Amino acid sequence: MSAIQVLGISNAIVDVLTHVDDQFLTRVGVPRRSMVLIDEQRAEELYRQMGPTTEMSGGSVANTIAGIANLGGRTAYIGRVFDDQLGRIFVHDMQSLGVDVRLVPAKGGPPTARSYILITPDGERTMQTYLGNCTTLAPEHITPQTFGQPEIALLEGYVWDLPQGPAALAKALELGQRAGTIMAFSLSDAECVKRHRPAFAAAIGKEVRMVFANETEVMSLFEVTSFEAAVQRAVKVDALFAITRSEKGSVIVSGQERVVQEAYPVAKVVDATGAGDAYTAAFLYAKTNGRSLKDCADLGSRAATAVIQQVGARLEKDALYRIS
Amino acid sequence: MSAIQVLGISNAIVDVLTHVDDQFLTRVGVPRRSMVLIDEQRAEELYRQMGPTTEMSGGSVANTIAGIANLGGRTAYIGRVFDDQLGRIFVHDMQSLGVDVRLVPAKGGPPTARSYILITPDGERTMQTYLGNCTTLAPEHITPQTFGQPEIALLEGYVWDLPQGPAALAKALELGQRAGTIMAFSLSDAECVKRHRPAFAAAIGKEVRMVFANETEVMSLFEVTSFEAAVQRAVKVDALFAITRSEKGSVIVSGQERVVQEAYPVAKVVDATGAGDAYTAAFLYAKTNGRSLKDCADLGSRAATAVIQQVGARLEKDALYRIS
Repeated sequence: MSAIQVLGISNAIVDVLTHVDDQFLTRVGVPRRSMVLIDEQRAEELYRQMGPTTEMSGGSVANTIAGIANLGGRTAYIGRVFDDQLGRIFVHDMQSLGVDVRLVPAKGGPPTARSYILITPDGERTMQTYLGNCTTLAPEHITPQTFGQPEIALLEGYVWDLPQGPAALAKALELGQRAGTIMAFSLSDAECVKRHRPAFAAAIGKEVRMVFANETEVMSLFEVTSFEAAVQRAVKVDALFAITRSEKGSVIVSGQERVVQEAYPVAKVVDATGAGDAYTAAFLYAKTNGRSLKDCADLGSRAATAVIQQVGARLEKDALYRIS
Repeated sequence: MSAIQVLGISNAIVDVLTHVDDQFLTRVGVPRRSMVLIDEQRAEELYRQMGPTTEMSGGSVANTIAGIANLGGRTAYIGRVFDDQLGRIFVHDMQSLGVDVRLVPAKGGPPTARSYILITPDGERTMQTYLGNCTTLAPEHITPQTFGQPEIALLEGYVWDLPQGPAALAKALELGQRAGTIMAFSLSDAECVKRHRPAFAAAIGKEVRMVFANETEVMSLFEVTSFEAAVQRAVKVDALFAITRSEKGSVIVSGQERVVQEAYPVAKVVDATGAGDAYTAAFLYAKTNGRSLKDCADLGSRAATAVIQQVGARLEKDALYRIS
């Protein structure tokens, strides 16, 4: 067996996608373009008001792991689902791409997590997430057996929101140190960064040497108000920052090295869901295959461009091959 | 409350869609473009071999009912799901369009039905269907309360495959007679017609006065080898036939009246799933609103054209408004 290139540890979520108009968001009282955590009762209430939906496996870092596997990378995954139909769908979709899924579906606890993704006519998404079984992730799930010795381990910011998430991730950081794994963070969203800034800031540049973020997230991390100020701060941290900027492309900062990547033209944004996840997938795939930062950023841009022109956060099988 | 315009009685199915290449069909031994019924074990086996999937409510006549509701028609639905996540998704998607769902999810019996829809690069679909809880449909589910007094009741050919399907449909035909309801058949597929030809032939032109079929189905019904021969037979039957012919458009035969409808140009067939169902939806919507047969056929063609240029069998909410 060849070694795992990228292990993901994150919330295992099934996306429930629907198209809504802006009035719908106002009516149900959901702030536009936000990601808000909701409880089961609110999830049921919201679902009752939604039109017909499509279900697809999702979850930010899970999307990235699926994307790397889709490109041919060797990946593994740790995340909790319940043993229900949505949980089995989630596991199937990962395994069908060759991802080594390291936890079996739980027989107890809440149902599999789902994220209601409300797509407005401009292609932007507003997410309401019920974390369900994800909340049961605990240090006992992160062991030398489940962690293994991946080249890179990608941790999701959202996991800090889980009751035992910080403890589980601390264990991952410790195992990573021992295994010589490069520890990477996906900052998830600016609100999440705000909730856990001290923990994030303490780890980045120490155990964590690679950060994936968009510009608002990285500005929130450093508590600065301009992108350039954030870059100036990133330069001084001993970590690689891959920062996406929507139509402005992306910037990679690694100490004094800086790569500026233009965005590719987009005919029409159909659904912005998964742009960052797809970027990270292609970036890490290129990185673990020894490509230059410029190549990593370029492939990342291509993947993000492709995914926002379809509905859903994961490119169909082989789609990334066609663009790369 | 205003009266129901169209009631559907059919298999309640969740579609599990995936893109495959032609080699996949050969490898798993599935005949191209067929609809084959499979048992639960085979369903699990096949699923294990499939790539990532997308889940969407489906079922032929259920798609049609959803389509009519989407256009603003008043609809009701009878079909069996289990009380599991897929069953709740199915019911949600119908109710969210305003469909009056008349059976509650079953607490016993097999899980909710699913159809594995294998989409090849040419946009054609090959279906492997596990009927699950649909098989529990029985005469007790068709009562004066659940049937009501719809203007039109649309019955699905596939229901004849269920153990108590013929008995349930016989009861529907009887209730329809009493209620003054126009009974309509969707012939489902040519193999289905072959399996139940005597039953279909006996009802059409007697209790059943409206038939939706594609050209191979109607040729199978009349056991003739040319489309024109089928039309000649249809002319003599006391029923309206709406016959779809893919890129050749459609033909409506109602006694001596004949309407020929051209197909609309299609840039690229993305997924042929649901073309016939969408045609029937728009046709019946127009019909129950007193439009001419020419208008019915024209709106049907527009709906079919729209649905084959997307993935999935049901147009997103309001899509039909935009094309009509």
